[in-house]
Amino acid sequence: MTLAQRSIAEFVGTALLVAVVIGSGIMGQQLAAGNVAIALLANTLATVAGLFVLIEVFGPISGAHFNPAVSAVMAWRGNLPRRALAPYVAAQLGGALAGAWLAHAMFALPIVQISAKLRSGDGQWLAEGVATAGLIFAILRAPAGRAAAWVAAWIGAAYWFTASTSFANPAVTFGRMWSDSFAGIAPASVPGFVLAQCAGALVGAVLHRTLAARPG
Amino acid sequence: MTLAQRSIAEFVGTALLVAVVIGSGIMGQQLAAGNVAIALLANTLATVAGLFVLIEVFGPISGAHFNPAVSAVMAWRGNLPRRALAPYVAAQLGGALAGAWLAHAMFALPIVQISAKLRSGDGQWLAEGVATAGLIFAILRAPAGRAAAWVAAWIGAAYWFTASTSFANPAVTFGRMWSDSFAGIAPASVPGFVLAQCAGALVGAVLHRTLAARPG
Amino acid sequence: MTLAQRSIAEFVGTALLVAVVIGSGIMGQQLAAGNVAIALLANTLATVAGLFVLIEVFGPISGAHFNPAVSAVMAWRGNLPRRALAPYVAAQLGGALAGAWLAHAMFALPIVQISAKLRSGDGQWLAEGVATAGLIFAILRAPAGRAAAWVAAWIGAAYWFTASTSFANPAVTFGRMWSDSFAGIAPASVPGFVLAQCAGALVGAVLHRTLAARPG
Amino acid sequence: MTLAQRSIAEFVGTALLVAVVIGSGIMGQQLAAGNVAIALLANTLATVAGLFVLIEVFGPISGAHFNPAVSAVMAWRGNLPRRALAPYVAAQLGGALAGAWLAHAMFALPIVQISAKLRSGDGQWLAEGVATAGLIFAILRAPAGRAAAWVAAWIGAAYWFTASTSFANPAVTFGRMWSDSFAGIAPASVPGFVLAQCAGALVGAVLHRTLAARPG
Repeated sequence: MTLAQRSIAEFVGTALLVAVVIGSGIMGQQLAAGNVAIALLANTLATVAGLFVLIEVFGPISGAHFNPAVSAVMAWRGNLPRRALAPYVAAQLGGALAGAWLAHAMFALPIVQISAKLRSGDGQWLAEGVATAGLIFAILRAPAGRAAAWVAAWIGAAYWFTASTSFANPAVTFGRMWSDSFAGIAPASVPGFVLAQCAGALVGAVLHRTLAARPG
Repeated sequence: MTLAQRSIAEFVGTALLVAVVIGSGIMGQQLAAGNVAIALLANTLATVAGLFVLIEVFGPISGAHFNPAVSAVMAWRGNLPRRALAPYVAAQLGGALAGAWLAHAMFALPIVQISAKLRSGDGQWLAEGVATAGLIFAILRAPAGRAAAWVAAWIGAAYWFTASTSFANPAVTFGRMWSDSFAGIAPASVPGFVLAQCAGALVGAVLHRTLAARPG
Repeated sequence: MTLAQRSIAEFVGTALLVAVVIGSGIMGQQLAAGNVAIALLANTLATVAGLFVLIEVFGPISGAHFNPAVSAVMAWRGNLPRRALAPYVAAQLGGALAGAWLAHAMFALPIVQISAKLRSGDGQWLAEGVATAGLIFAILRAPAGRAAAWVAAWIGAAYWFTASTSFANPAVTFGRMWSDSFAGIAPASVPGFVLAQCAGALVGAVLHRTLAARPG
Repeated sequence: MTLAQRSIAEFVGTALLVAVVIGSGIMGQQLAAGNVAIALLANTLATVAGLFVLIEVFGPISGAHFNPAVSAVMAWRGNLPRRALAPYVAAQLGGALAGAWLAHAMFALPIVQISAKLRSGDGQWLAEGVATAGLIFAILRAPAGRAAAWVAAWIGAAYWFTASTSFANPAVTFGRMWSDSFAGIAPASVPGFVLAQCAGALVGAVLHRTLAARPG
């Protein structure tokens, strides 16, 4: 694959992932008549299914990172050429924005929005750290062909057991900033989330090292 | 397999698929006491499970298209003999109608109905385009034995993240026209949906070409 | 495996299957506060998960039929020694009764009950026929190791798209007769269901023959 | 793997498992507005997904027991070195406590809590016995690579069909004692649950022996 093809895959995959997260949040909230648990259930199931198929489909093309934290860890470990890191992250951020706009267009909402939903506090940041640490650890340990199921299952659980509903992804966090809907996050809350995600990614990578098989 | 056997498989498979979509919609609406989100959750889960098993079971016989857009793309790529295209599409359309009637018979409703539910607008059409593009792209990239899981997961996500609940299939759209129930679509809305699905199928096929491995 | 071991497996497996169906129905109804759709969703998910693991775990021992219709078809096709048919069916019926009683004991309800829930009518019988035909067809086509996923997915869909919530199993129908709870069926309704299931099994077997590969 | 590495894996895995169970219970209850069925559905789905990925990810390191009953059976069968049993159980109990505290920290609740939720009675104890017997039986029969899916499916079913929502794990029971939330269990109820789990584990191991293939 050329780097251009791989960047297109990261762009399209991240766009669809963000469209799934935001779109299913809008649909869930519109239909659930105020029952937030049902809206979040629908949001979770759509995200789990979408993540699974997007990682499986785009994996052989670009690795299906859709996530700057994953790309950074991969570059650091030498699994992604360092010169590919910037194009990957640019494609992910651009894709995340495009995905938010795509969701709005499908639901006939104003395209350009900014979220007003504040998400912050020690609990939320700890939650993002745990979610991202587990995500990175699972990805680093996944044998060929297992990453999609593992990541989907982890994020599905983390939607409910972390207090933040598990963003665990700086690009998705950036994309959700552009949507004043169920899945949105206010710009003021983004830096805290991204910082917590970076710290979590580090913890996940360190845990992976700690538990790696040692040559005898 | 003979062409007759394959056409029977397309007929029975499409009929059961449409019966799953319409039947679970009826059941969901009857039981959910006005909570549309719960009805759609049930509708989604039944469709995901049904799609998965129907594609797996009928795949080795006919390819388990159940969808004229899929058959057309397959014929265009040479994966389906061109002379099989017309029988396939006829079997799919006939099966879709039979499936609607089967669902009505099981729920003791009038067999022949016409939906009055209008579904149109730019957002809905864009949604059908996105849903069908993703479907075609996933099918074209699926290695042997993965199509069922990929298609089921994609449609499961698309039930919630596309504003149209993801018909993504001209035959299923045709079948749902014949049911004045939760899953129905008014005849006046069918052409717009089918056109959007055709456009989406084209986008999916082009995306697949763009991201295909190139000989060095 | 000895026939005794295989019969024990059929007894225990069918008992647990019926306990799952009845027990999750009781739990669902107790918690859902009158929302039948939510109770049935829980009932469905528990049954899908239970069926999957029970078929996988007991499959290598007895074939994991848990169903006289399946055993009869297998004996007719020569996949089950004919002298094993009676012990299998006896174990399935005994297990179904034991499973109903186990569910009642766990929920601290009177052990011996008889259902008062009438389930009949052309629509219900057609639904049982469709559900059982699809079940038998899927089982007959399943390659090694796929039956559990296929059966679980089929029954999961059929809980919602058939009007009868898909019993599709004479032993389970018998067991559910002994429970005056969400999943129960009145004795007067049992013969109609079992007859419809037998007709459906025949249809499934005939469809399988019709679509089988022919030697050139 | 060194024993230290394996113990860390048991600690972290059990901590995350308990955090999933308790955290998703808190989230479910907070959002479900009094509908306990929806809270338990969310709790179930998060636990199923979490169990699956945790067993898959930690399995190659420590076996992913996360459960003293499993470790005891494995040591008794010679699948776990006996000198590893005490460190395993210590890591599991410590991890369970840490997991409860982690969940509380994420949800900004008081870290140290004691549950006041009494869970006892013959029905509950029978339920714990059945849940643990099935769990041990499934684990003992699982071929390589199947344990995660089997255990997740079994526990998912058992959340609903056993009256106790299936703790089936002395370490998790211990951890849930430290949380006065949806998933909690009062200290007074712990001994009964653990005893029932031990009895169930014995039944599961005996059933496995009874149904094991005999050399001819």
